[in-house]
Amino acid sequence: MSRIRSSQEWEVRASTLARKTTNPIRQIVEHLQVEPNPEKELIALSIGDPTTFGNLNPPDQLLQAVRESIELHKSRGYAPSKGHYEARVAVAKYSAHQGEVSPEDVILTSGCSHAIEMVITAIADCGQNILIPRPGFSIYQTLSEGFGIKTKYYNLLPNEHWKIDLDDLESQIDDDTVAIVINNPSNPCGSVYDKEHLYEILEIASRNKVPIIADEIYEHFVFAGRQFTPISSISKDVPVLTCSGLTKRFLVPGWRMGWVVIHDRNDVLGKEIRLALSNLSMRILGPSALIQTALPAILECTPQSFFDEVLLFIETQAKLAYKELRVAPGLRPIEPQGAMYMMIEIKMALFPEFKDECQFVESLVAEQSVFCLPGQCFEYPNYMRIVLTVPEDKLREACQRITIFCKEHVIGEKRKEIETNDIVNNVEVICDDITNVL
Amino acid sequence: MSRIRSSQEWEVRASTLARKTTNPIRQIVEHLQVEPNPEKELIALSIGDPTTFGNLNPPDQLLQAVRESIELHKSRGYAPSKGHYEARVAVAKYSAHQGEVSPEDVILTSGCSHAIEMVITAIADCGQNILIPRPGFSIYQTLSEGFGIKTKYYNLLPNEHWKIDLDDLESQIDDDTVAIVINNPSNPCGSVYDKEHLYEILEIASRNKVPIIADEIYEHFVFAGRQFTPISSISKDVPVLTCSGLTKRFLVPGWRMGWVVIHDRNDVLGKEIRLALSNLSMRILGPSALIQTALPAILECTPQSFFDEVLLFIETQAKLAYKELRVAPGLRPIEPQGAMYMMIEIKMALFPEFKDECQFVESLVAEQSVFCLPGQCFEYPNYMRIVLTVPEDKLREACQRITIFCKEHVIGEKRKEIETNDIVNNVEVICDDITNVL
Repeated sequence: MSRIRSSQEWEVRASTLARKTTNPIRQIVEHLQVEPNPEKELIALSIGDPTTFGNLNPPDQLLQAVRESIELHKSRGYAPSKGHYEARVAVAKYSAHQGEVSPEDVILTSGCSHAIEMVITAIADCGQNILIPRPGFSIYQTLSEGFGIKTKYYNLLPNEHWKIDLDDLESQIDDDTVAIVINNPSNPCGSVYDKEHLYEILEIASRNKVPIIADEIYEHFVFAGRQFTPISSISKDVPVLTCSGLTKRFLVPGWRMGWVVIHDRNDVLGKEIRLALSNLSMRILGPSALIQTALPAILECTPQSFFDEVLLFIETQAKLAYKELRVAPGLRPIEPQGAMYMMIEIKMALFPEFKDECQFVESLVAEQSVFCLPGQCFEYPNYMRIVLTVPEDKLREACQRITIFCKEHVIGEKRKEIETNDIVNNVEVICDDITNVL
Repeated sequence: MSRIRSSQEWEVRASTLARKTTNPIRQIVEHLQVEPNPEKELIALSIGDPTTFGNLNPPDQLLQAVRESIELHKSRGYAPSKGHYEARVAVAKYSAHQGEVSPEDVILTSGCSHAIEMVITAIADCGQNILIPRPGFSIYQTLSEGFGIKTKYYNLLPNEHWKIDLDDLESQIDDDTVAIVINNPSNPCGSVYDKEHLYEILEIASRNKVPIIADEIYEHFVFAGRQFTPISSISKDVPVLTCSGLTKRFLVPGWRMGWVVIHDRNDVLGKEIRLALSNLSMRILGPSALIQTALPAILECTPQSFFDEVLLFIETQAKLAYKELRVAPGLRPIEPQGAMYMMIEIKMALFPEFKDECQFVESLVAEQSVFCLPGQCFEYPNYMRIVLTVPEDKLREACQRITIFCKEHVIGEKRKEIETNDIVNNVEVICDDITNVL
């Protein structure tokens, strides 16, 4: 009865899923020569973890909620696969700005990336495609390509505060398009879309009958004078699957507490997609019950002042970096409106010694020990991204070093012009400072 | 440039993965009519969560480790996708009984089901198959079928302490078989394999060049006089991917802290499978950094006495249930050697009023308010599984109610015979009791 397999040698191969699950950022960064200048302390403006430098800490109320959760019996056993009911009630209430949300619309996940994985794999099959922004965060690719789900880019417009090129977006939709990913506020752009633009996006989705995956992990991260509008809150017919979590806003990215909120005003998703998400939630079960048990208190007790302070800090940093870098020759920072990042255009023609922005970034590390992520990490060459959550003195120092680097490498004729301009710029900066004091 | 899709109606379909991700246990249980007898308190012997009844609590050292972890900065930020290095060092040390393990061999996961998902999806592609035990826990199916990975059963032998039918195992191997899942100690059987049997299994795996996935979440759960042998510890050439975690042994299943340990003595898995697991770990990142940070203290400081006490309790319960149920007419409990479950054969021929064991279980709930999982949940009709971790008085009461139920439903002729036997059995039981006192 028994039979021996033909192969006499061991040969264990990795699955397609595993081979095609890649992180473009890691691959690009691993190929960089990033040995910093030993005489200067390395300042990493590359890490999208706001807790890295220790200057930003989670709210006391959150820590206290988990201290209390530890003592509770229910924080130890298995939670239902979609999450504790009380926690889902709390998320539904917390997400009321997104529109009407019931606990039945909420599924807790192991971080926001699990939420994104769940919604993509619930509606997309091998051979189908989702539309994702360019520049955009690489997680959508990482989660899709292993499954044979294609990612197609739609362009953002750097000169229009990274608004979506709507014609391009609509032209990318084909018969195999199953979702449009909208990341607002945006990583890496730091852009925030106003209501009018969101209506334009919804119109395209509605006309083409394509649901939206809203990556709103930076919800509420908007600077003074701007308003955050969840795209679900103004959708009349387009189903929206919103992904969010504690991650960034509560400064505990390592806790892996995320969620999906299903917005389906017109019952388009019906039972099928709800069941799909429910099925997928059974695979590994959701986030730690320890955090789930604390979630209601975390969401209810964290004071607005906590969020306001963090946001004020980031906005101040954004202004600092923008002001410092707009005088750096050959760079064009694009002022962010929210999130915690800034994109900076590198006018590569003014730095002919570097073949691309990766080489620029490499030399910046080697000479000035400042590390920024090259735009290629976001499918957007000739740019680099900096993180704004580093401590103020480090950010200032980093910007100054970047400026020195640019002055040293910008092409000759340009350099003279710049030296003249520097005087003008400095006067402008001084005027700004006086204005601020007043 | 823009185009409108042909479909004018909304039509959002679930993916194959989502549709084919099912939990057979849930589906079977949902179809049962399980309205308990309102005059008797429900005793659920169905729930594989040892914390459900509150009689089993995690070690103080574990709770203290997390209390301290909350205050530490590193418990808040992103952990590396394979886990904090210190935590992986601790798991490597904790897993030394499995053979030589370095931190590089360890990947932390969001619970043991995530570990199993990761190893299955790292080595199996759509159309390939893995061999799984029958009876066996349904998670292997739940995690495989959505990907088009087939599960093929090999039989366990109820009359030989659920050893594997080795001929059957080998006969199931075909050119598309990429792994054999060995669950030892076993859910639902409560069996524990000795070294000799594990050698026999390894011989088949070696001869056919098929790696082993060792689901050892019940490692160390073995009763007096038996020894737990991790299959990896005696493998000379067969690569073993071992899945385990805090879950059951530390009584915190809800915390979702699991891990994969790669055992690859002869470098068969090479870079490919290690890279595959590393790639997959990037998808959603692992368990909460809060628990990761506490992990070294949890694994090092929990005293052996804690494990001994829990195990003694479960073994005492196993003996109690076995003793009570072996006198139940028409049942044949199979004495477990470890884990926390017992399988009971229902001699359906003696209960002709029930068409299958599901109906038996339904009536048992309706009349006696005792709920056991029908064998079909484990692809094994004519059996039912009980959980041994419920409080002693509840377990005793449940067993007595089951016995009453059997006496009431067993066919007439048999019943008389049983009534005579009861006297004999009772004498035996009394003798046992006297022996114990002595």
